[in-house]
Formats: sequence, structure tokens, C-alpha cells
Amino acid sequence: MVIPPPNHAADIRQPLPLAEAASRWSTPLLLLDHHRLEENLRRMRRRAENAGVALRPHLKTAKSAHVARLAVSGLASDGIAVATVREAEYFAAHGFRDLFWAVTPTRPKLDRVARLIAAGVTVKISLDSLAVARASSDAARELGVKFPVMIEVECGDARCGIPPTAPELLELGHHVAGDPGLHLVGVYTHAGHSYDHICPEALGVVAREEGQAAVLAAEALRNAGIRVQEVSVGSTPTVSRGEPVPGVTEVRAGVYMFSDCFQAGLGSSGYEDIAISVLATVISNRPDQGHLVVDAGSLAMSKDRSTERLGGKGDVGFGRVCHHTSQEWIPDLRFTTVNQEHGIVKASSPEVLASFPVGSLLRIQPNHACVTAACFDAYHVVDGHRLVVDVWDRVNGW
Amino acid sequence: MVIPPPNHAADIRQPLPLAEAASRWSTPLLLLDHHRLEENLRRMRRRAENAGVALRPHLKTAKSAHVARLAVSGLASDGIAVATVREAEYFAAHGFRDLFWAVTPTRPKLDRVARLIAAGVTVKISLDSLAVARASSDAARELGVKFPVMIEVECGDARCGIPPTAPELLELGHHVAGDPGLHLVGVYTHAGHSYDHICPEALGVVAREEGQAAVLAAEALRNAGIRVQEVSVGSTPTVSRGEPVPGVTEVRAGVYMFSDCFQAGLGSSGYEDIAISVLATVISNRPDQGHLVVDAGSLAMSKDRSTERLGGKGDVGFGRVCHHTSQEWIPDLRFTTVNQEHGIVKASSPEVLASFPVGSLLRIQPNHACVTAACFDAYHVVDGHRLVVDVWDRVNGW
Repeated sequence: MVIPPPNHAADIRQPLPLAEAASRWSTPLLLLDHHRLEENLRRMRRRAENAGVALRPHLKTAKSAHVARLAVSGLASDGIAVATVREAEYFAAHGFRDLFWAVTPTRPKLDRVARLIAAGVTVKISLDSLAVARASSDAARELGVKFPVMIEVECGDARCGIPPTAPELLELGHHVAGDPGLHLVGVYTHAGHSYDHICPEALGVVAREEGQAAVLAAEALRNAGIRVQEVSVGSTPTVSRGEPVPGVTEVRAGVYMFSDCFQAGLGSSGYEDIAISVLATVISNRPDQGHLVVDAGSLAMSKDRSTERLGGKGDVGFGRVCHHTSQEWIPDLRFTTVNQEHGIVKASSPEVLASFPVGSLLRIQPNHACVTAACFDAYHVVDGHRLVVDVWDRVNGW
Repeated sequence: MVIPPPNHAADIRQPLPLAEAASRWSTPLLLLDHHRLEENLRRMRRRAENAGVALRPHLKTAKSAHVARLAVSGLASDGIAVATVREAEYFAAHGFRDLFWAVTPTRPKLDRVARLIAAGVTVKISLDSLAVARASSDAARELGVKFPVMIEVECGDARCGIPPTAPELLELGHHVAGDPGLHLVGVYTHAGHSYDHICPEALGVVAREEGQAAVLAAEALRNAGIRVQEVSVGSTPTVSRGEPVPGVTEVRAGVYMFSDCFQAGLGSSGYEDIAISVLATVISNRPDQGHLVVDAGSLAMSKDRSTERLGGKGDVGFGRVCHHTSQEWIPDLRFTTVNQEHGIVKASSPEVLASFPVGSLLRIQPNHACVTAACFDAYHVVDGHRLVVDVWDRVNGW
């Protein structure tokens, strides 16, 4: 007896209504609304054009070559950012030749990057310490390649990176510039703390600080005689809401492609822009408990509760429950609990509960697109809000 | 250019020291300690033997045929429980012939179960409503199979299931018993709310209520002339801490195989019994922030914060940071934050921080084994606490 192919592996030769798709593949399914995706991409493209900076789409959220091709279409360059070496390998195999891997490398990962570079792919690596610079330099010498380098600058995120005014920045800059195995391309920063700020004014401040930190670092290096071509910044909230800072050459963002309930709550987008959702089936309807149970639990939605911080209407529990075809929000259903394969959805009244009997389909917008999408290995692509038109793969893991 | 095989796919022909494994495969890696696994299995086996009930290992946590074979070894039966149809298909393909799928089915999943049944595999399905019973009956008739059925009983968990004293129980029992497409095997319940109780006395009460609810339901059905063979209960906390209730024929549990920081905090096991951990590499060490950054973020650890409820020493942040070979806890390192590919670990002093330079390996015990394991598609099996001896696959998805 052989293992059947994955749940999603069936061929799709003609568009299928959602309900038929849910009878062909088992729920939970990760849906991707093609129209909303295109709109989100178009909006960000225009924003970057207006700001006069290059846009480097970050594929850490989508992890899909299909999405990447759409994301770079209409841009001057097809450069993308990735978060794992596995993504770098996957996108290189799908023809992408300009990658920026925006997470600090380890030695075995440098070995893998070197194989990509030897095959003609540009993979810029991220450094924020002499220790990693030396390890990268050793790897470059042993493997016979030269690593293009972006130095990571800290802009208030308090994670990785060197503060733009720290003497370590110049020390690292001189080291990289003078190392035969490394080639300093530029500096970059990421205002991950933009996710902590839910008021537009504060977001504007963080966006400005993000740009200024990167520009300040670039200037400090240039004043020390070190050549810096690229000044790259970005996070979906700052790129969506901030004003461009002169001197920034490139913005990176990823979540904007799909958006999610947290981004909508922050104001980076509207709820009607959210392009991914989880299609789930009601498997139990319990008037005694006042709730229904769907077959999307923590392994489908993740345990992310980022919207809790938004409070009020912004806090959508474990996901925003919508009608499965119209994608219209159902405020009378609240997704209160996830267990491994069970999601518990409270109904505001017995009448509401009765209107979603066992077998009903629901479409749930996630709190956080990156972690929910990572629960799945494929997208069921929906067009016209009703028809499943394709199945696109994703690359998870490291 | 083709996509290289997954990070873990390399053959392993002889045991490798952990550090060498981490230079061969890229971190984060999911490690499984073979010795601890065997001890956890042996302990639960003996507990079930002493209680005089059958043990049906639940493979929802491990999702691995290798682990399943070890889990049933020494038991009277090789029956297992699963949480998804994909698991049922996978374990059937690996030779398992007695499966209980302990989550309510939907129609497309019944189609897949029917194919397994037609191939000679027993797959008991779970019902808690007439609606699903009728859908199952329709499917049985159309597909020419008979579904063995376990009726789900509610025991205080407030999720799925019929309360043992509710009239709906007898109604459903009569329906299933009289339906030519269904065969009533027994009743089952799951005290998922045992996870809410952190004091041993309360856990004992929940365990007793779990057993009593199932036995009460079985008696109610038998008094109505309906044959009930199996009375199945279980959750790792109740099976680990509770006393057997007469009339219960079978216990199910899954997390006990691996355990985790939440189970250890509850007292289901000790921290030294935790069999899985995430091997991570320090990629940044920032004296200015007082923290180090590891390459295990939310996509490797999950966003589970279940240990928060334990408070005090039981609350280990996003995972309990240990030395990579000894597995000894490092109380001076606290895993405070996860971003997608970054984990932030605060050090209690500059000296502690300095002792974990960039490139150091750390081994992190997860809060919740089920969701952390689901981030990976393979186990790197460690023996003698130091040597990687094998790579075992896992089956994720639906």
C-alpha cells in the first residue's frame, strides 16, 4: 500500500467553485485571492515608484515562485529578498538571479550560498559582526567564491544590527571592504518594531527613524572612504505608511502581498485587501455550548494572537470569520480557541449558530499571514472570489 | 538549475557528533532523543499495564511511522489513534491496520477513509451528531463500505461531544446501531481541559470525570440495549496523573512520547524526560542589547506560550534553553521573543552573554511538542545525548 499524494496534489484543469473544491480536497485549505494579490502588488509598486526608490519584494511570507513572478512584474529589477537558504535555493531554481538573504548566515548555510553563487546567482548575505565576517571570509576562501555583503544596521528594533553611530560599524565596514572574499554592496535595516505601534503618527516616526538610521550608517561609511551602493530599508508597516527618506535606494516588504488582520488593524491595508484565508468546514454545532467547531485548529491557523494588542474590533481572536464566497465578515461569529485540529467559534445567539450547520464552509482571515501560510505547502488560488483556478506550491523549512 | 533536496535529506551511514551534524545540515533542526523516547514509552506502557487498560498511542504529536512502531512495541495491539486523514493514509501505508481517527469527519475525508477501509484497514471514525451520522451513512452506502464508529462524549472539555446524560446520546446511539452503513464500536472522550489545571489534585478530579463520563455514556447506551465494546479516554495529563476508572477499556495519549515544557510544568513528566528539542545556532551576540539571537524563530518554535500560565520557573518564555550536548538547562538564558526566523535570548549578565559567542549551538526544549514538531518535516534522532544516528520522516498537512 502506497501513501496517496498530498491532499492538494490533484490536477486542476478548469475552474472549480469553492464548494466543489472543498469536496475534492479536504479542508483546511489555504486560499489565495488572485485579484486581491494583484491589487496589493500594484499598490506597493506604485508607492515605490512615487517615492523614487526600488522595491525588492520579500518572499518570506509567500515562499512561492508564482507569487514572486507577479511581485517583480513591472519593476525595474527582478531582485527579491528571502529569509532562508532553502528559499534562496528554491527561487534560484525557478530562475531568480538577484537574491538578498536578509538573515545572518551560519557556516553550513554559507556552503549552500556558495553553490548558488558558483552557479551564477547573486546572493547578498547579511553581516552584523566581525565574527560572522571572518567566518564568511574563511568560507569564501575555501569555497573559491566572493560573497556580496549587506551590513545590518540597528534602527530601534533591538534585534540584530549595529547602531549607525557605533564605532563597530566602521570597523566592520573597513574589514569587509578590505577582505578579498567579501564585497561590500550596502547597508540595510528593518524596523521590526513598527509592528508594536498601532497609531499612524508613531508609525510615521518609526518609518523616518528606519530610513534615517540606514542613511546615517551609509554616510558614516562613505565618510570613512568606504563605497556603499545600496541603502535598503523596510517592513510592511513602515513602507505602507511612511514617507521616503532621501538617500534610501531600496525598500523591502513582504506581508503587503497578502496582508492580514494585524496589518489591517495597523492601517497598512483594509480587511478587504487580505488575499489569503483558510477555508474550513463546520464539523460540530453545539447549541449546548453556544459554539461551532471547525476543522482548522492551531496547526492550520497557528497560535498567533497578534491582534490581541489592537484591542476592540481589531482583536479578531484566532482569525476573522467570513462567508466563504463573498468574503464578507460575520461579526456574530468569534474564533475564540484553537486546539491542534479543532477551532472553536462562538456564536452571538442560537439563531446565528443554527445558520451554520455541520458541513457549512467558512473562510477565515488570519491574524498573521506569515505564520498561517507556513502551516501549508500549497495555495489554492481563487479568482473572482468564487472559483479555484490553480494550485501553487510553497517552500517551507530551512 | 534544479532545487536541491531538503536540508535533512542527506543519508546518514554512521553516527555523527551533534556539532558535525550541525555543520552538515543547517539549523534549526528538530532533535529526537532516542533514549528519552524509549523511556517515556516504557513508562506509559507500564502505567497502562498496571491500570489493566489497553493503551492506544496517539500519533498526532509524533506523526512518524518510526515512532509509532516503537510506541506499539510490547503492547497487546498495534492500534493507534490519529488526528488527520493524511496521518491515517500515511500510517496505513506503513503497515498499521487498526486506526482510530479521533476528529469528526467531513465528506471528502470520508471518501479517503473509505478507500483505506476497502484496502482492509480498520479506521474508526468519530461522531457527535445525527448530521454527521447521516452524512457518514450516505457515504457508506455510496462507497460500498461500513464505517466503524466511536461516539464522542463531552466530559467538561466544552469542545465537541455529547454530554453523557443528554437524550441526544441515546438518539445517536440508536441511529448508529440501526444503520447498515455504520457499526457502533464504542464511546470515547478527551479531557482537553486537563491542560487548564496545573495542580495535581485538580488534575486527579478531571481524570476521574473523564473516565466517569465515558463509562456513564457506555452504561446509558447499554441500558438502552445498544452494544458498546470500547470505552476510550485520554489526554497525556489525565493518563499520566489520574487513577483508572472501572469500565474504561482503553486510554489514548500522544504528547507523553516526547513531553514538553508545559507537560513538565504540569507534572506529567520531568524536564529531563523531554525527548524533542530544537538545535539552533547563535547568529548574533549583542552586548549593547544584552541578548543573543538564534536562528530559531516562530517558524521553528511556533508562537505557543502555554507555559505562561504556569508562572514562576515554569514559564520558560518561548522555550527552555539548554546546553547542546548535555541538555542541561541554562537558567541564565531566557528565550523572550520570536520573530519569523530570529529568536531573541536574553542573558542575565555580560559574562553569560560572552560565553555564547556567534556560532555556539543551543538546544531548546519546546513549550508544546505538537506545534513545534509540526514546524519540521523530519527528526534528527540523537542517541547517547551526543550522536545523531538517523533521520526519521514526519507527515504534516491534511
